Amino acid sequence: MIILASKSPRREEICRLIGLEFEIIPAKNECDIDLTVAPEEAIRKVAEAKAQEVFRAHSKDIVIGADTAVYACGEFLGKPKSEQEAFQMLKKLSGKTHQVFTGVSIILENQKVSFCEKADVEFSELTDSEILEYIASKDPMDKAGAYGIQGKGAKFVQRINGDFYTVMGLPCARLYNELKAFDVF
Amino acid sequence: MIILASKSPRREEICRLIGLEFEIIPAKNECDIDLTVAPEEAIRKVAEAKAQEVFRAHSKDIVIGADTAVYACGEFLGKPKSEQEAFQMLKKLSGKTHQVFTGVSIILENQKVSFCEKADVEFSELTDSEILEYIASKDPMDKAGAYGIQGKGAKFVQRINGDFYTVMGLPCARLYNELKAFDVF
Repeated sequence: MIILASKSPRREEICRLIGLEFEIIPAKNECDIDLTVAPEEAIRKVAEAKAQEVFRAHSKDIVIGADTAVYACGEFLGKPKSEQEAFQMLKKLSGKTHQVFTGVSIILENQKVSFCEKADVEFSELTDSEILEYIASKDPMDKAGAYGIQGKGAKFVQRINGDFYTVMGLPCARLYNELKAFDVF
Repeated sequence: MIILASKSPRREEICRLIGLEFEIIPAKNECDIDLTVAPEEAIRKVAEAKAQEVFRAHSKDIVIGADTAVYACGEFLGKPKSEQEAFQMLKKLSGKTHQVFTGVSIILENQKVSFCEKADVEFSELTDSEILEYIASKDPMDKAGAYGIQGKGAKFVQRINGDFYTVMGLPCARLYNELKAFDVF
C-alpha cells in the first residue's frame, strides 16, 4: 500500500493527477524547521520526519511525506495565525520574487529517497485593498505564505521558475519519476 | 457585459479564478497563423482576430479573445488530428524545453489592448510506453502540443519559466492587471 502522510487536499489532488492509488494517514507531530542549515536541507528534513513518523506504524508500506515552505527576505513564512499576519505576509511578497521549497521523502522498508525542490515565484505589486479583499475570501488562511497559487491567489503570481506543483505542495514530475524506482509505475 | 470569445473550458476556469463575470460566445472562424512574423506577434494577431470577430456582433461589450500555441524546434504544434500525430508531437517534446505562447486581446468600443505571453516548458524524457499510455487516456487529443499541464500531462513537466496559466491557456495575472484599465476590477 502507498500512504500519503499529509492531510493537504492539494497534495491529495496531485497524487491523483499522477495516477497514484494511495491512502491518507497524516503525520501528527509538528516538526520545527532547523534554521541552522540551508532552506532546502531544512525542509527536506521536515518531510523526512513526517514520513518516518507514519512509517513507524506502517512499516510494510510505502510512505510519502512532504512539507512546503515559503521563504521570503531570508525568513520562512508559515501559515498565518490571524488575518493581520496574513496581511503582513502578503505585503512582504508584494512586488517581489520569493522562493517556495517542497521537501519530499519516500520510505519503504529497505529503500528511502528524499529530496527538496525549489521554485521562484514573482508576485505583482498588490494594493492594500487587493490584499484585504483576498483575505476576506479566506483563501490565504490555511496556506504557507498566505496564498494559494491554484486558487484566488493565482492572479497575483506573474511568473514562476520551477515546477508549478512544487508551489502547490508536491513536485509532480519529480515525485512521479522517483516513484518509478519503487516499482510504483 | 464581458464576453470570453473562447470555448476552452480551461480559459473559462481561469476567468472564474480571477473573479470575472462573463458570458461565453466563441469565435467561429479558424485563423491561420502568420508564419512570416515572430511567434509572439503571430499568436497575438490570432487572438486579436478572434476578439474582433465576436466584437463585430457585440460592439457594446468588452470582448476577450485568446489563442495558445506550442512552439517546438522552430515550428508550431497545433491540436493533434490523430493519435499517431499526438505520438509524434510528444516524441518531439520529450526531454527538451519548448515554448508556449498565449496571445490575448481585450476590445471595448474605444479601447483595445493586445499582448502575448511566453513560457518555457521543460519536459522529462518520456518512454514510448509512457506516451502511449498518456494517449490512451485521451487527455492529449483536444490540446495544442498534445498535452495538458493541468491534467494527466502534469507529471511530464519538470519545470516552467513563465506564468503557469499561460501554458494552461490564459495568463491569469497579466489578464487581471490589464482588465483594471477597463474598470473591471
